[in-house]
Amino acid sequence: MKKTEEKEIELDFSKMNGLVPAVCQEYKTGEILMVAFMNKEAFEKTLKEGKACYYSRSRNKLWLKGEESGNFQQVKEILVDCDNDCVLLKVKQVGGAACHTGYKSCFFKKILKNGKIKIVGKKVFDPEKVYKKKE
Amino acid sequence: MKKTEEKEIELDFSKMNGLVPAVCQEYKTGEILMVAFMNKEAFEKTLKEGKACYYSRSRNKLWLKGEESGNFQQVKEILVDCDNDCVLLKVKQVGGAACHTGYKSCFFKKILKNGKIKIVGKKVFDPEKVYKKKE
Repeated sequence: MKKTEEKEIELDFSKMNGLVPAVCQEYKTGEILMVAFMNKEAFEKTLKEGKACYYSRSRNKLWLKGEESGNFQQVKEILVDCDNDCVLLKVKQVGGAACHTGYKSCFFKKILKNGKIKIVGKKVFDPEKVYKKKE
Repeated sequence: MKKTEEKEIELDFSKMNGLVPAVCQEYKTGEILMVAFMNKEAFEKTLKEGKACYYSRSRNKLWLKGEESGNFQQVKEILVDCDNDCVLLKVKQVGGAACHTGYKSCFFKKILKNGKIKIVGKKVFDPEKVYKKKE
């Protein structure tokens, strides 16, 4: 039997029509920056090049995070879950913000017990100055 | 116009046939414990009862995390992302482990640069002693 370290990863893209969810976490603080999706090509590109590349479901194409804004995500570590159908990226977020709205994290809204929302995030940039068009 | 705090959350379940991904994070350490999915009913039950409830894609039914193992997840905070199609739960993990394999986190495998995997997680319990049948 091969040693654990020698097993090659085979992600299971079958459960979501060729995609797996990818959670992106700031490597130093542990803050969750965003959740996106990857197809096989995006995953392989990310692993090879060390910059987070996702698959945009709305645009139906590879999405190198930061290609427009310059706010790339330098991948420090990639983990995969027990059943190989989800990945976790630990990254350094260039520019300090991951969300296209200008907030540091996409998760800037807290859901209160009564179902109402409260903005709790930190706005880092003005999206109108960063994007020519909305990402 | 209503104040931000008064807006009620409306999750967008349309992109994944009635589901949204739910990232589960340990509230004290920031460690990602698991990623699962919620339908509307699971989300509302979680919000109301304060214990993480997901929707099992393999069993096609609501899945109250811990219902078999006793390892419930006490929800401390729920956040939602910019486009309302993903939630983040910050929880206290009863029993200290979220993964059905006995590891603390489902993300116990690191993907190395060459695509091979290395076990980096911490095993907390023996699944054969915790589950009568595999979760």
